[in-house]
Amino acid sequence: MKGRHGVMSSQEKITYKPYKKSYDYSYTLGAFPTLELINSRKDDIKCIYVHSKYEGSVDIDKVCKDNNIEIRYSDKAINRISTKDNCMIIGIFEKYQCKLVNDRPHVLLVNPSDMGNMGTIIRSMLGFGIKDLAIISPCADIFNPKTIRASMGAVFKIRHKIYSSYEEYHKEHGNHDMFPFMLDGDKTLSIHDCPKSDLYTLIYGNEASGLPAEYKNIGQSIFIPQSDDVDSLNLPISVGIGCFMFTSTNNINKL
Amino acid sequence: MKGRHGVMSSQEKITYKPYKKSYDYSYTLGAFPTLELINSRKDDIKCIYVHSKYEGSVDIDKVCKDNNIEIRYSDKAINRISTKDNCMIIGIFEKYQCKLVNDRPHVLLVNPSDMGNMGTIIRSMLGFGIKDLAIISPCADIFNPKTIRASMGAVFKIRHKIYSSYEEYHKEHGNHDMFPFMLDGDKTLSIHDCPKSDLYTLIYGNEASGLPAEYKNIGQSIFIPQSDDVDSLNLPISVGIGCFMFTSTNNINKL
Repeated sequence: MKGRHGVMSSQEKITYKPYKKSYDYSYTLGAFPTLELINSRKDDIKCIYVHSKYEGSVDIDKVCKDNNIEIRYSDKAINRISTKDNCMIIGIFEKYQCKLVNDRPHVLLVNPSDMGNMGTIIRSMLGFGIKDLAIISPCADIFNPKTIRASMGAVFKIRHKIYSSYEEYHKEHGNHDMFPFMLDGDKTLSIHDCPKSDLYTLIYGNEASGLPAEYKNIGQSIFIPQSDDVDSLNLPISVGIGCFMFTSTNNINKL
Repeated sequence: MKGRHGVMSSQEKITYKPYKKSYDYSYTLGAFPTLELINSRKDDIKCIYVHSKYEGSVDIDKVCKDNNIEIRYSDKAINRISTKDNCMIIGIFEKYQCKLVNDRPHVLLVNPSDMGNMGTIIRSMLGFGIKDLAIISPCADIFNPKTIRASMGAVFKIRHKIYSSYEEYHKEHGNHDMFPFMLDGDKTLSIHDCPKSDLYTLIYGNEASGLPAEYKNIGQSIFIPQSDDVDSLNLPISVGIGCFMFTSTNNINKL
């Protein structure tokens, strides 16, 4: 919120460059994710850049004015931040962390490595009303503009928190029933047999390696039946099916 | 199968270049999809290129010899075909079409536009034992190396056929129960209520625009319940959930 209302601050002198993970701010590239940012996290916004050729249906000047957000017009800044030619609006926001809500269902991703997958997973979770995402590092960068774009801006509508280990997560949320999804899971998921639980965490491993074997000792491991013709299902597909099945079986009051 | 066994043919003079849709052949880039190609469609293979730095666990020379497939060693050819540095094996194969099996369940994609999505969908279908894919053009290129890679080679294990219209598809397979998936679908899919059908076609529209409104008049339209927080679910997620639910509800003898 610094630098608005004509008050000069050191921040205004920043020359924004292509995104790096080490920055304490990130970007929304394009109108759609930027509008989701404004709708959901406007207090984290530093400013919005608009290109002189922007001709979208949204009156971005009015939206920014109504929300008291600084707007800047600089084709040069936009071209410097985004490598794509067709990016007409960029939002710049400070990164944040959240506290997960303890009495809501969670998804827990262990070492996810692909930003596109992470964005797709966040979009699916939100679609099924699961709004709390725990992530165990090392992991793909949730604030990389690629993740944000793949999520269609859904990342701004969920809560997320990064943990250094499962133990750290469990200390905070050990009251959840744990369901690790594994190729050698003990329980085969089907329409006739999906676990009932008032409060659950759906746990998924890395794209290439899956969950480490020790997760079989945590809660009730789940196998999504699949033919030997494939190595495994794509990670976002497995998460999507898990979220659909658990929310369809266990009605949650969607927040 | 031309040009093997030391017999010279005109084909051997082709200088292979980066892929174009207009070619009547395509490429598998990398060891994994190339091995799937060899396993499933070896009669369509023109030759396999191997890079001098290939050090993978598979003895590709033996595999090619055992399958009577011509192997070529040319770093130059590989670098010309693939823009990626780490591609060590390339398979070159003739494009083909298939006849769909009429008494098996189908997935029908209407104007899919994203190659990555199409590959992911094919991988999911195969995982759930649905091996027949109808596609209505215009559509993403099923034989683009990007589609093949996203499918993890699953494209070689399913049957696919491209139609110019729904009517053309319906003429061949009108005996199927049709289930168009739409945001305004009449029936809400849930674990307690998934349609029963011995022979079904799951129909999905384009990523951006969904199915045209007239599909509501075809069979039983289906809505996957989702919150207003998202525009829609990602297409491969919807297809994955549909395939899981229908195959879980209606046991099929997997071919």
